Amino acid sequence: MSKEITSRAEDYSQWYNDLVIKGSLADYSAVRGCMVIKPYGYALWENMRDQLDRMFKETGHQNAYFPLFVPKSFLEKEEGHAEGFAKECAVVTHYRLKADPSAGGKLIVDPEAKLEEELIIRPTSEAIIWNTYKDWIQSYRDLPILINQWCNVVRWEMRTRLFLRTAEFLWQEGHTAHANKEEAIEETKKMLDVYATFAEEYMALPVIRGLKTESEKFAGAEDTYCIEALMQDGKALQAGTSHFLGQNFAKAFDVKFLNKENQQEYVWATSWGASTRLIGALVMAHSDDDGLILPPKIAPVQVVIIPISSKDVEGQKKINEKAQQLIKELKAVNVSVKYDDNDNSRPGWKFAEYEMKGVPVRIALGARDIQNNVAEVVRRDTKEKRSISLEGLSDYIVTLLADIQKAMFNKAKSYREEHTTKVNDWKEFERILDEKTGFISAHWDGTTETEEAIKEKTKATIRCIPLNAEQENGNCILTGRPSKQRVLFARAY
Amino acid sequence: MSKEITSRAEDYSQWYNDLVIKGSLADYSAVRGCMVIKPYGYALWENMRDQLDRMFKETGHQNAYFPLFVPKSFLEKEEGHAEGFAKECAVVTHYRLKADPSAGGKLIVDPEAKLEEELIIRPTSEAIIWNTYKDWIQSYRDLPILINQWCNVVRWEMRTRLFLRTAEFLWQEGHTAHANKEEAIEETKKMLDVYATFAEEYMALPVIRGLKTESEKFAGAEDTYCIEALMQDGKALQAGTSHFLGQNFAKAFDVKFLNKENQQEYVWATSWGASTRLIGALVMAHSDDDGLILPPKIAPVQVVIIPISSKDVEGQKKINEKAQQLIKELKAVNVSVKYDDNDNSRPGWKFAEYEMKGVPVRIALGARDIQNNVAEVVRRDTKEKRSISLEGLSDYIVTLLADIQKAMFNKAKSYREEHTTKVNDWKEFERILDEKTGFISAHWDGTTETEEAIKEKTKATIRCIPLNAEQENGNCILTGRPSKQRVLFARAY
Repeated sequence: MSKEITSRAEDYSQWYNDLVIKGSLADYSAVRGCMVIKPYGYALWENMRDQLDRMFKETGHQNAYFPLFVPKSFLEKEEGHAEGFAKECAVVTHYRLKADPSAGGKLIVDPEAKLEEELIIRPTSEAIIWNTYKDWIQSYRDLPILINQWCNVVRWEMRTRLFLRTAEFLWQEGHTAHANKEEAIEETKKMLDVYATFAEEYMALPVIRGLKTESEKFAGAEDTYCIEALMQDGKALQAGTSHFLGQNFAKAFDVKFLNKENQQEYVWATSWGASTRLIGALVMAHSDDDGLILPPKIAPVQVVIIPISSKDVEGQKKINEKAQQLIKELKAVNVSVKYDDNDNSRPGWKFAEYEMKGVPVRIALGARDIQNNVAEVVRRDTKEKRSISLEGLSDYIVTLLADIQKAMFNKAKSYREEHTTKVNDWKEFERILDEKTGFISAHWDGTTETEEAIKEKTKATIRCIPLNAEQENGNCILTGRPSKQRVLFARAY
Repeated sequence: MSKEITSRAEDYSQWYNDLVIKGSLADYSAVRGCMVIKPYGYALWENMRDQLDRMFKETGHQNAYFPLFVPKSFLEKEEGHAEGFAKECAVVTHYRLKADPSAGGKLIVDPEAKLEEELIIRPTSEAIIWNTYKDWIQSYRDLPILINQWCNVVRWEMRTRLFLRTAEFLWQEGHTAHANKEEAIEETKKMLDVYATFAEEYMALPVIRGLKTESEKFAGAEDTYCIEALMQDGKALQAGTSHFLGQNFAKAFDVKFLNKENQQEYVWATSWGASTRLIGALVMAHSDDDGLILPPKIAPVQVVIIPISSKDVEGQKKINEKAQQLIKELKAVNVSVKYDDNDNSRPGWKFAEYEMKGVPVRIALGARDIQNNVAEVVRRDTKEKRSISLEGLSDYIVTLLADIQKAMFNKAKSYREEHTTKVNDWKEFERILDEKTGFISAHWDGTTETEEAIKEKTKATIRCIPLNAEQENGNCILTGRPSKQRVLFARAY
């Protein structure tokens, strides 16, 4: 096979890159830190996007579109926000090129086309959106505003990795405005639940819901809620965040409303986002050394049918007829199916190719199978192979796809449970991190200093303070100071 | 009524702006030349996008995503392309801001974070995509590549108008690669047909298919095909373009393939695009002095139901029950419906509001109507009002929506036919342009000089050389030189 994949054991990071590139999800581009999302990867993103979009609309949100550019002065307005995003942004300073007088055919920036105020490519849109909401909100009757935006954003990361950390990425960002604090907090939590449901039910990715610590929260937020997932190398990955912004942006952009008591009040805000980074999580949580393993509910192709070529023309014709009939039956039950009857490659090459691409179910149809009225069905996750009767095969496939979806979730959940360790001792903490890896549930004294010290010593961060965790008196893992609740530590992406 | 609209007769341009803003489609933003697409306008765009996307996929195309940034040196590679786009682009020169040491809380561009090579925000993506295709194409087996991208682009326009001409806009751009010229030309024409079908069947917008002249074609194309529509002020609007790019970009980016004869050959290319500008066309082609008129097939809301409040509680309850039943029936036949039972506004205000928003059908339900087992149904396009039996009302609505769709197309087509004039005399040409307006079908000698001279004298441009037009000997409208075919002139957006 031409497409060798590095094994996880050999080099986990290279394994990931191999999967993304050889699985045809994405590729590096000529622009530093930016990627090209290839058709197969984009089809996966479309399925994820469409499902999230349905969930947003079902919870009362509408889509809208705001400018790509944020004037520099807008970014300055919310202090924490500015500090968080000014260090890694793309800055537009000019609006024209002109012919280079000293080099034929070359272009230079026209110095006469300098912008009066620099424009930042949005790293996130709170600033531009709250400047707009100012014009939209006068009274409590204008609230709530429940808007989402699907768009591209740019954060000038120095170290980039396909999907996980790229300068430009695609995402959605919800921005809501409310008349009171309680409603805004409720919205923040509701959208966290949407993300968690999406991750677990569609991506087959079990997640922990929690609250970020002061030092890990969003720049400009009062509270950041997150969902955290565990990858196969025992590192955590933040898969979505939902922020309660308090009145910070309303104050920065002077957005007030007349409440029912006829008094001016600042508006309450939330924002929440999930990005193409989720694709990185998907790849790392489920795949194996032979390629991607995609959950049926979001896989671009759920079933691939591969004819096993027969030398006699009559046999080929019969295989093709059966395949066409099966395609029809599968489409009738809403299963997406690809028929690969390309003559240029042998079946074995195709088997490996669709394993690489993580197609959940492969059906092989040979002349002898058809004589016996069966097909060979292989599920990608376990590679289990079965000979199944062609009668009622489409029903079998529907059930099988549901089984695979469930099995993938259960497998990832077992892995996480095995890799979540309660630790009460510092030496043990270091040992588990290095040897067993995964989440460590440990007591923490609640200070940023201790959090920083632990990070410096071990590279582990507090992934979250789990929601609804039991209250338990204990002592901080590092300082021994009193603590009332365990938090989750891990090394993370 | 609070939302006054300027009439078309009084000020056509202001009428257009009033409709876009008061109809809640879009708003100006704080960033020069950029707009905010509001939820109602974005829902309209989603319907248009989803339909176009279906048509692209049905014709074998897949979506993908390429970087927002085009390195300056890439833009230089295709000479005509560079000339066409360098004059109006947003240039990223730096990747970091820092605290202004001389002003607390302010940010300045960090001079140490200057990019080695400037990045242009894509005005269109031929350059970045063809640089990528170079890596994807080796042999004829890799062809054709049929890819589309939905994204934002930026062209630094000096005079902007909501939807019609904005610095940033949303669009799709198809970029295909082929093994021979004939196949590329066929693709170019096929996608022009897709645009024309979409415009006519979904937007109810009759269009002329044609070829652009040398001076009006896309920067970098061999041939630009277009669809041209006529607005109610007699001005033309280009509603979509499809370019045969020849081997220009393949040569600029050195993209060759090994053909079946085992020889290296440059790849053939097409690109084609349609944008949020289509929303401007939609508004201007159909609306009236009371607001928007949206074609049912793409309207965000097809039917609005307004209860006529009754003073007795029992009456209100009955109205509500009937409304809920009707909503259920309409949804069952895939009609999108909004029930506006908001107590804060009177029915008359609501009537005007939904007329403004162009909702195709309004149903009013009052206590007396229900006693008589009828509802009052008003179609937005003609404002015709009818009392219709509640039995079978949903079937009536389905037929009515189809009628409205057809009537809107026919009305726009009649207008265009009335405003397309064959002219053989220069004085007449000028008079028609000023007085009757619309398309002028006239002979032209085929030179860019004459085209320019006519533009300078009258502001009219050649909108297109219509496809499949009859050959006819004649004399150029300006120079009297011989001509073999009429072309279409108009003043245009």
